[in-house]
Amino acid sequence: MNNPIAASVEVLAFDVFGTVVDWRSSVIAEGEQLGRTKGLKVDWSAFADAWRAVYRPSLDRVQKGELPWTKLDVLHRMSLEEILKKFKIEGLNDDEKDHFNRVWHRLKPWPDSIAGLQCLKTRFVITTLSNGNISLLTNMAKHAGLPWDCILSAENVQHYKPAPETYCLVPDLFDLKPEQVMLVAAHENDLQSAQKHGLRAAFVHRPLEHGPGKAASMPAAGKYDLVAKDFLDLASQMGI
Amino acid sequence: MNNPIAASVEVLAFDVFGTVVDWRSSVIAEGEQLGRTKGLKVDWSAFADAWRAVYRPSLDRVQKGELPWTKLDVLHRMSLEEILKKFKIEGLNDDEKDHFNRVWHRLKPWPDSIAGLQCLKTRFVITTLSNGNISLLTNMAKHAGLPWDCILSAENVQHYKPAPETYCLVPDLFDLKPEQVMLVAAHENDLQSAQKHGLRAAFVHRPLEHGPGKAASMPAAGKYDLVAKDFLDLASQMGI
Repeated sequence: MNNPIAASVEVLAFDVFGTVVDWRSSVIAEGEQLGRTKGLKVDWSAFADAWRAVYRPSLDRVQKGELPWTKLDVLHRMSLEEILKKFKIEGLNDDEKDHFNRVWHRLKPWPDSIAGLQCLKTRFVITTLSNGNISLLTNMAKHAGLPWDCILSAENVQHYKPAPETYCLVPDLFDLKPEQVMLVAAHENDLQSAQKHGLRAAFVHRPLEHGPGKAASMPAAGKYDLVAKDFLDLASQMGI
Repeated sequence: MNNPIAASVEVLAFDVFGTVVDWRSSVIAEGEQLGRTKGLKVDWSAFADAWRAVYRPSLDRVQKGELPWTKLDVLHRMSLEEILKKFKIEGLNDDEKDHFNRVWHRLKPWPDSIAGLQCLKTRFVITTLSNGNISLLTNMAKHAGLPWDCILSAENVQHYKPAPETYCLVPDLFDLKPEQVMLVAAHENDLQSAQKHGLRAAFVHRPLEHGPGKAASMPAAGKYDLVAKDFLDLASQMGI
């Protein structure tokens, strides 16, 4: 293996929403299906964006202590009520809302995700490191065919990223030095937080996460250990 | 599905040592290999039994508060020193001891385990629920090809089985009633503890766990929800 980083890394820890799965088009597709069934006229792209926009603020309420530890399923369900009101959507009973809330368990992977993970799994331990709760990540993996070796979550430490406990979890559990663990993410803030705690960082470009024409800019050269265009490119750069 | 239990159960949680993997013959085989390499004359069957015999007392030291939370890898490593002395084995350096200690990450599955789990996985969420630490269970799965949907451990709750926290973990994480979770184990004490907390219980007979001629007796009829002769039989009784 020519890449000295690849030679020293043992575990790849993946951010999930946006990095492994395409939350936006998955929520839109299920929204459109729900709209057809229930005869609703809704801009589901705007709905998906609005629901996701309250994600970070809801995690922050937990991290600031305004809420006790609350798993993401419950935060999503609380914010769903708010967004349904905002879009004047009525006529859904609790079972229908609960089912729609679990769309986050059924998010679709990016086209390269499964093949890339299968490839990376031959050489590294691959685990989630997500704010999604353990059952959400387990059901998503089962639904989508994501071949994780291990499911790790903010729920393991009852703190949401970017709390230090989340990044330190992986080296602690696996008895590794932080630099033997690499976070893989499409978001620079996540990668920079991981780097603060000594983890390696691989940026993967997901230009369609927020819809067409809204791609994040590519990071400056040298800012992260690796910059990859998708998981297959990541595997190739890691010498597989 | 004819079986009403199978229809209501969502998650199967598996005890691992002895139930999924054959710890005894795996430790014996690696011991014999080590013996050949280092020129040691040791009764490795007796060694494996002695090492395992201090497993439960070492967990109890943690549960009684004599030790702070200590992961199983570390308990195994402490007891390895003790057993090496008992068997008058000298001349192993720390790296060799550390490697041998990780034989618990490399235990071999029973012949039916992989096929049975693959089958059960088509209908149920399958997870570990073991006193083994998360990295041990992850490495074991990767090494042996065990297709878990999720790795759950005493380490998640920092209490060893039979602490209530361990059995309650699975319904808590998956938002299920206890009776929607079934523990699968080869040990009656584990199953009875699970039943106390409302979980379903499936006994799987592993007559060779402690070596030839030392099979546990079959449980009385009706004591558990299911009694199976192996994981394929379990799948069949679960209507798959």
